[in-house]
Amino acid sequence: MAHALRLAEKGLYGTQPNPRVGCVVARGDTVLGTGWHQRAGEPHAEVFALREAGEAARGATAYVTLEPCAHHGRTPPCADALIAAGVGRVVVAHEDPFDKVAGAGIEKLRAAGIGVQVGLMRDAAHELNIGFFSRIQRGRPWVRVKLAMSLDGRTALADGSSKWITGEGARADVQRWRARASAILSASGTVLADDPHLTVRLPGDERFVPPLRAIVDTSLRTPAGARVLDGTAPTVLLHAPDARVPAHLADMPRTAVRRADGGIDLHAALHWLALQDVNEVHVEAGPALCGALLAAGLADELLVYIAPILLGDRARPMLHLPPLDDMASRWKLQTVDRRQVGDDMRLQLRPTSVAPAQAGAQ
Amino acid sequence: MAHALRLAEKGLYGTQPNPRVGCVVARGDTVLGTGWHQRAGEPHAEVFALREAGEAARGATAYVTLEPCAHHGRTPPCADALIAAGVGRVVVAHEDPFDKVAGAGIEKLRAAGIGVQVGLMRDAAHELNIGFFSRIQRGRPWVRVKLAMSLDGRTALADGSSKWITGEGARADVQRWRARASAILSASGTVLADDPHLTVRLPGDERFVPPLRAIVDTSLRTPAGARVLDGTAPTVLLHAPDARVPAHLADMPRTAVRRADGGIDLHAALHWLALQDVNEVHVEAGPALCGALLAAGLADELLVYIAPILLGDRARPMLHLPPLDDMASRWKLQTVDRRQVGDDMRLQLRPTSVAPAQAGAQ
Repeated sequence: MAHALRLAEKGLYGTQPNPRVGCVVARGDTVLGTGWHQRAGEPHAEVFALREAGEAARGATAYVTLEPCAHHGRTPPCADALIAAGVGRVVVAHEDPFDKVAGAGIEKLRAAGIGVQVGLMRDAAHELNIGFFSRIQRGRPWVRVKLAMSLDGRTALADGSSKWITGEGARADVQRWRARASAILSASGTVLADDPHLTVRLPGDERFVPPLRAIVDTSLRTPAGARVLDGTAPTVLLHAPDARVPAHLADMPRTAVRRADGGIDLHAALHWLALQDVNEVHVEAGPALCGALLAAGLADELLVYIAPILLGDRARPMLHLPPLDDMASRWKLQTVDRRQVGDDMRLQLRPTSVAPAQAGAQ
Repeated sequence: MAHALRLAEKGLYGTQPNPRVGCVVARGDTVLGTGWHQRAGEPHAEVFALREAGEAARGATAYVTLEPCAHHGRTPPCADALIAAGVGRVVVAHEDPFDKVAGAGIEKLRAAGIGVQVGLMRDAAHELNIGFFSRIQRGRPWVRVKLAMSLDGRTALADGSSKWITGEGARADVQRWRARASAILSASGTVLADDPHLTVRLPGDERFVPPLRAIVDTSLRTPAGARVLDGTAPTVLLHAPDARVPAHLADMPRTAVRRADGGIDLHAALHWLALQDVNEVHVEAGPALCGALLAAGLADELLVYIAPILLGDRARPMLHLPPLDDMASRWKLQTVDRRQVGDDMRLQLRPTSVAPAQAGAQ
């Protein structure tokens, strides 16, 4: 299964909106065939693995990181393919959350007399498709907020300059996190201040599905000539229903989202993104949007790069958050990963509590 | 030598103001005797190791982490003891910086026909006594600034409450850093806000030399009944020459330090501490004193505990620093150690640059 998970990871940048899936067909310690899902519309992992195993698959064991599908989507059901190949046993890491599958694949296999074991390396399989699970089960994408800060928690000087807080290694690393996301979420304030491309730049010819650039632009302030309007990647502006549409944005993809708290309703915005098949959202924005996502209980994960520098207390803060009444209501996080990237440190953290004052917003 | 350094470390909390020194007498791979300096006024490491080796020391090799002394201090010269024991060779990690020794020990050994090799694991030997070297060579202690902050770089809520940012593991770890210091430096602002003990609490009966509590108290505001006045550890108040001495502080040890920049001159204060034989200073104070030490180029090291919590931008900043004009003048640090302590992360960093605007203050 570990092998199958590594195979699935090869689809990290390419399977959107489908999940990343890997499959190994083996007999004892002998691998007979391997496969992974490469991109939407193309064959699933099981098909590649069975094809490679050929006749040897008969009576063998198939290890699959996600429950084989039982429905006719853009490709025929994999459960049928496994049955037709005559595998003797199927080991599944995680059930498919998608309601058209949801146990039906496993049942179909069992009905055909195939032994099915579910749950081997379940957590790792869930992590690999955390956005896919989130979209299907919660109706909203997995939201990962990227922050690059100094040791004293500052993301820019008082004048807004922030090039560069982190080193080259960290900036290259960020490109990989962008690449695995279905959408990059930012705000018009960031567009006005930094004019970022918000596209993916990977070394060599590595393939990826270009993430949607989604800009929270309540009043449609994105200026003509902004790089996010350059057409190099799909882009959408999320604005308030009553925003006046300036001429230079007349032909831009955009969607109206209901107002809330002086901006657009972030729950509604994320729900809309889920409807567009967005699994993982990578957020690169200023302290206002990042803080608002966290305060609303919508930030599922923080990806924090800490540079070994100090900018001082006049520099800009990492997050705008509602003030706390006492230490008991501090925002608690769980560190899920921590590593060095060049001179910088990278932390991956997930909120474990929401301050009482904000609990209602969740 | 690695063995000798580990032995020397046993004196981490106890040798002040002397350096921590370890010694191994060996022949090939066979250890004949070991020793370490335990406390000032008692025998040096070499004496213990030679005593244990006895007659076997003749012709053997002595590994010493610091150059053996050649002068009569509170104990007779170790170079003489090594010569008398008839060792064949002495390997020294680092020369003694103390001007009464400074090569004289090595020369004495060589004059007696003993082969001396200097520099094995030199850096590690220097680190172990970084405060001792600093005091002797720079005339000021090694200043280590301890900070406990949230992930977003905040050390207290807006109302000053800070119990507790970090977890129990980190707080126990801090006690060990206090124990190895000759002095704990704080400020009257911290005394007024938090009323800390600033003493060392180690588990079990571990012995240590109680560090001097040195309080920067320009105007002598430390109130009657403050815990730092409880007499449980030596304490001194550092104040401006023109400060009025209130009755409750009349009998307290204190010293006048010349004024600078609205407070006392921190260079002068540290110089005074060095004259009191202070090797390492452990700073636990607020953003004003910590920031001032850094801005003056006097903070040699930051010991930063980062808790996986967020306090928001209304909470108190980590350091008050002069504003920066551009990113090029950011304060650069080098990470020398990084580890997990309970739920918190501990970073040990050293400044590698001083912002141009502050360079003159160094």
